Amino acid sequence: MIKVGIVGISGYSGYETLKILLKHPQVRVTYVGASKTTGPVDEIWPQLKNQTSLICEKFDTKKAAEKCDLIFLAVPHATSMTMTPGLLKAGKTVIDLSGDYRLKSNEDYQKWYGVEHPDSKNLAKAVYGLPELHKEKIKKAKLIANPGCYPTAAILGVAPLLATEGKSVRSIIIDAKSGVSGAGKKVAEQLMYCEVNENFKAYKILQHQHTPEIDRYLSRVADRDISVTFVPHLLPINRGILETIYMELDHKVSVDQVYNVYKKFYKTEPFVRLFPLGQWPELKYVVGTNYCDLGIAVSESGRQVVVISAIDNLIKGAAGQAVQNMNILNGFEESEGLI
Amino acid sequence: MIKVGIVGISGYSGYETLKILLKHPQVRVTYVGASKTTGPVDEIWPQLKNQTSLICEKFDTKKAAEKCDLIFLAVPHATSMTMTPGLLKAGKTVIDLSGDYRLKSNEDYQKWYGVEHPDSKNLAKAVYGLPELHKEKIKKAKLIANPGCYPTAAILGVAPLLATEGKSVRSIIIDAKSGVSGAGKKVAEQLMYCEVNENFKAYKILQHQHTPEIDRYLSRVADRDISVTFVPHLLPINRGILETIYMELDHKVSVDQVYNVYKKFYKTEPFVRLFPLGQWPELKYVVGTNYCDLGIAVSESGRQVVVISAIDNLIKGAAGQAVQNMNILNGFEESEGLI
Amino acid sequence: MIKVGIVGISGYSGYETLKILLKHPQVRVTYVGASKTTGPVDEIWPQLKNQTSLICEKFDTKKAAEKCDLIFLAVPHATSMTMTPGLLKAGKTVIDLSGDYRLKSNEDYQKWYGVEHPDSKNLAKAVYGLPELHKEKIKKAKLIANPGCYPTAAILGVAPLLATEGKSVRSIIIDAKSGVSGAGKKVAEQLMYCEVNENFKAYKILQHQHTPEIDRYLSRVADRDISVTFVPHLLPINRGILETIYMELDHKVSVDQVYNVYKKFYKTEPFVRLFPLGQWPELKYVVGTNYCDLGIAVSESGRQVVVISAIDNLIKGAAGQAVQNMNILNGFEESEGLI
Amino acid sequence: MIKVGIVGISGYSGYETLKILLKHPQVRVTYVGASKTTGPVDEIWPQLKNQTSLICEKFDTKKAAEKCDLIFLAVPHATSMTMTPGLLKAGKTVIDLSGDYRLKSNEDYQKWYGVEHPDSKNLAKAVYGLPELHKEKIKKAKLIANPGCYPTAAILGVAPLLATEGKSVRSIIIDAKSGVSGAGKKVAEQLMYCEVNENFKAYKILQHQHTPEIDRYLSRVADRDISVTFVPHLLPINRGILETIYMELDHKVSVDQVYNVYKKFYKTEPFVRLFPLGQWPELKYVVGTNYCDLGIAVSESGRQVVVISAIDNLIKGAAGQAVQNMNILNGFEESEGLI
Repeated sequence: MIKVGIVGISGYSGYETLKILLKHPQVRVTYVGASKTTGPVDEIWPQLKNQTSLICEKFDTKKAAEKCDLIFLAVPHATSMTMTPGLLKAGKTVIDLSGDYRLKSNEDYQKWYGVEHPDSKNLAKAVYGLPELHKEKIKKAKLIANPGCYPTAAILGVAPLLATEGKSVRSIIIDAKSGVSGAGKKVAEQLMYCEVNENFKAYKILQHQHTPEIDRYLSRVADRDISVTFVPHLLPINRGILETIYMELDHKVSVDQVYNVYKKFYKTEPFVRLFPLGQWPELKYVVGTNYCDLGIAVSESGRQVVVISAIDNLIKGAAGQAVQNMNILNGFEESEGLI
Repeated sequence: MIKVGIVGISGYSGYETLKILLKHPQVRVTYVGASKTTGPVDEIWPQLKNQTSLICEKFDTKKAAEKCDLIFLAVPHATSMTMTPGLLKAGKTVIDLSGDYRLKSNEDYQKWYGVEHPDSKNLAKAVYGLPELHKEKIKKAKLIANPGCYPTAAILGVAPLLATEGKSVRSIIIDAKSGVSGAGKKVAEQLMYCEVNENFKAYKILQHQHTPEIDRYLSRVADRDISVTFVPHLLPINRGILETIYMELDHKVSVDQVYNVYKKFYKTEPFVRLFPLGQWPELKYVVGTNYCDLGIAVSESGRQVVVISAIDNLIKGAAGQAVQNMNILNGFEESEGLI
Repeated sequence: MIKVGIVGISGYSGYETLKILLKHPQVRVTYVGASKTTGPVDEIWPQLKNQTSLICEKFDTKKAAEKCDLIFLAVPHATSMTMTPGLLKAGKTVIDLSGDYRLKSNEDYQKWYGVEHPDSKNLAKAVYGLPELHKEKIKKAKLIANPGCYPTAAILGVAPLLATEGKSVRSIIIDAKSGVSGAGKKVAEQLMYCEVNENFKAYKILQHQHTPEIDRYLSRVADRDISVTFVPHLLPINRGILETIYMELDHKVSVDQVYNVYKKFYKTEPFVRLFPLGQWPELKYVVGTNYCDLGIAVSESGRQVVVISAIDNLIKGAAGQAVQNMNILNGFEESEGLI
Repeated sequence: MIKVGIVGISGYSGYETLKILLKHPQVRVTYVGASKTTGPVDEIWPQLKNQTSLICEKFDTKKAAEKCDLIFLAVPHATSMTMTPGLLKAGKTVIDLSGDYRLKSNEDYQKWYGVEHPDSKNLAKAVYGLPELHKEKIKKAKLIANPGCYPTAAILGVAPLLATEGKSVRSIIIDAKSGVSGAGKKVAEQLMYCEVNENFKAYKILQHQHTPEIDRYLSRVADRDISVTFVPHLLPINRGILETIYMELDHKVSVDQVYNVYKKFYKTEPFVRLFPLGQWPELKYVVGTNYCDLGIAVSESGRQVVVISAIDNLIKGAAGQAVQNMNILNGFEESEGLI
């Protein structure tokens, strides 16, 4: 039984993390903090009435460090990097759900997030918490950069083919569609009900801050520089990400070959479900779960591979994956509290 | 051909008013103003690209008065009452879509809207623009208080029975459900997509500011003090109001009797559609139109009358009714530009 | 550890029952049956891929009886009454989620469901499984008629006041709004996406088959004949029921009095959450849970009591309540597997 | 003033065609027919109550031919080809909204639609009614094959670049997302509200019957065989198609170059709106209109062109385009009745 804290409880990811942890048999939630919103957790989230008596306090490094062994930071980007150094210094383990420790350098961060990064030192030490690729490193990590929602679906959808056919992959296009909770709980005109409902649009076309994150970790898989074409879209639903991935090869493959590559790659992974040929993931199959569902097709020409990759952006794309990382790090069953 | 202006073009009601007026054969839109948002109208509403070259200016009484004969004010409450006196003084006709001129007195206004009303003088002169009840007065009005969305559906649903069975009506309960655009285009956490979608709730229970408006005009119909029980709810849809109205009588009636009362009452009205017994209004039948659809049932006991009343809150509940009032006032065909 | 079976796995209630039971620590699901759809459960519901290897068989009384101690029937009405007698005869306990054993007599059933009831004998023996009212009887039941979704929210919302102020309650109006899954998984034009989305309507006005069920059990509470006015509506959401209940009294009450009546009535109930005065239930607080949330207001006149009652129609209104009944019946913790 | 008929009034496209034609100043609707659903149009569509007294008759070639000059066929595929020959023989003009006359040959039709095509003769004579590409041919047509919804958005999005950079275009990927009305009004489990709502999925991946239609007409533009990669998805909204189109070039281009190509190509077209660089189409801008909105980006590498193309599937993708074709064919203003 370990003692954990969550900071950023008023956002969607923080709330989902709390919901999972309240039922996790190996964990006691001993601290709940926030930058602004404080008070009884069941007043912030009436959903939790009768289920918790936790009180959310204004975040304080010392208090947080005293009360728990491991801390989840579910705060906006540029906030996490002000909390993390103190917690690490106090000897605590940090799982950061924001984008603050996912990129390589201060320069990269500034280019895509538009802010200086004051903690370059820990940037270098952070482990990218995608369990299906980095399990061994996660086991020993002190600071985990929990992957972004789009990159989780993208990297899991691309990695097997890229690992196998690395040099033959001519281009990677990722057409991504996300539910609205992916934008967090911020109040903005373009996220108002009447603006989103019965609407659909692309946004940040070729300019989304998750692009360099995808490029960075796919480059590691391919062992060469990978640069994807990434276009995100906003779906009029609460949660879920579905990505349609187009990979062009410079030679022919059969759909069975590709299927077997994926099957082998994820053979022992509890949270990747490869769909039989001819069957396809849908958001409703993954929403509410920690699964990443994959489906595969190959064009008649044999050179265009299409992969459908679907996750719940708040679970496998945030809170669930964070708990999966905590499980691995602490030697618990990887799926504990998640199935 | 008259020259009209619209103030408050960046809100939903102002936009709907503009859309209707751009196609109205008797009208030229010569002025578009706003308190804050200014610039080309087709940049504010890309929907209108290629359809108008109007420029929205910062509202100025003098300019507005110079450029048009009649002005629609589609601004938030407490704003209209600062614009109306000047426009009336300049000899212009004003159709006010806000709540500012619908109640009887400054005291009432302050109680329900929480603000002082500095223009009591014009409060007394305003004509309540519900054409089905007040057509003669509308013809001669200089200031029209365009009815609220909830009151429009409520009063049209209740008036015929109340006019006929006035003293026998023991109680009136109005269970109202509205789409989100009824709240206007304001940015607020409780109107964010993820908060409204897949949700449903009652709000301002027994305390909504449209309650005294309904009471006031039903009291005129009944010729005695009427006090309704009014509970509004928020529907996860963009537009439309459906009200389920329960009226208890102190004697028995048959459903045919009630049906005939309604049929006679609205015989010559172009925008009220009474559904045959056994058939019922649905929001999809009225959304996008200026109709108020009504359906009727009577309980086995013969003492409980149920009326379903449905409108598009932005059209019959706002922009469409405003244009209907303009048509009547100017001697145009009542349905011109509206069918 | 008991062995349970579920019949009707391809419907929404059957699926929800299965999902709950697969995680229930005191239960093993040993049989899954259906009238038509058979095959691996995770092909019927890809959501469950990797989580169960159960195979759904064509329902057979003997097989079902051999394999389990207790059987949930989540089949359409008029089907359950053909399965129940055999299962009871074989000594099994039956929890029936359909409407087949909720009414008093064959006559009643035929009037509201339009079919003969061939099993009058067991009609008389069935216990109405609303734990908050009938816990003692449930403990000893062999056949439980699991309440309908609308009646659950209605009776829980009305019972406390009716039990206390029985003779003073002049009228009860229930304006109910339900998500689409309440209609089950049947394929019908009026439940197609484009017919429901962005729409809202009342249906079966004063004629819904849940009306006599509400009347019957409220009459028991009041110890006199109660006849409610009940109008259901179809909400464009997947799940959840919210009912706005209007009770007229023949004398004045204060809101504090009413609040205390409810507070006392549900003091020890784990699944009823009474909201503090001025706070109100919303569907999003209950969807996915077994709670019934209640909120209370009283009109200025002191004679009109308004209660908001909200549940998840598939959980507290079906599968969750069925499991709650199973828990009580077997002496498990009442909330086991449900929180 | 011409006399027109519409067959297939109970479907969404037929209904939209009727709505547009009822307000069209140059047209009188003199015949409304259907294969099955007959009766007063305002009972089939209560939306139209008070607006038409047309009666829908069982389709009969002779009657239809007697009553009108031009007939819109808004019937399912494989039905139109049984009606068209008779109407043409009677000297009538036919605008067919189904897929029956869009492909080159009986073989193609059978491969993609799974049915024999008994009217090869007229297949060869049909003019593909995409006004932006085939205006001159449309003027003289007797049989117009009105384009499919996906192909309309796809071809308009691809044609300018392909016409200019024909040989340099290495690959064309069309990631298409459609609202549910695109599937027509058929009753099917996968189109039920609860199956579509809060869900998103790809379907008929690389196998949709609109693929050969897109290939055929793009091949004409390029003057060589074009074969696109086409993946359609189902959006949880009523109407609208947005396609994200990826075109890879074998040399570098600047975004300004591409923008100017599109600008020039559609310079005189009333229904294509090219968005300024950095601004992007959204479904809400086109729904309810006959516009096709386009937006353009080019990747940093200069070799990947991204085009966003958005239409209302029922208007520019069906009924509106059909009326646009009728206008051109009859020498009316091209936008008559459509703006």
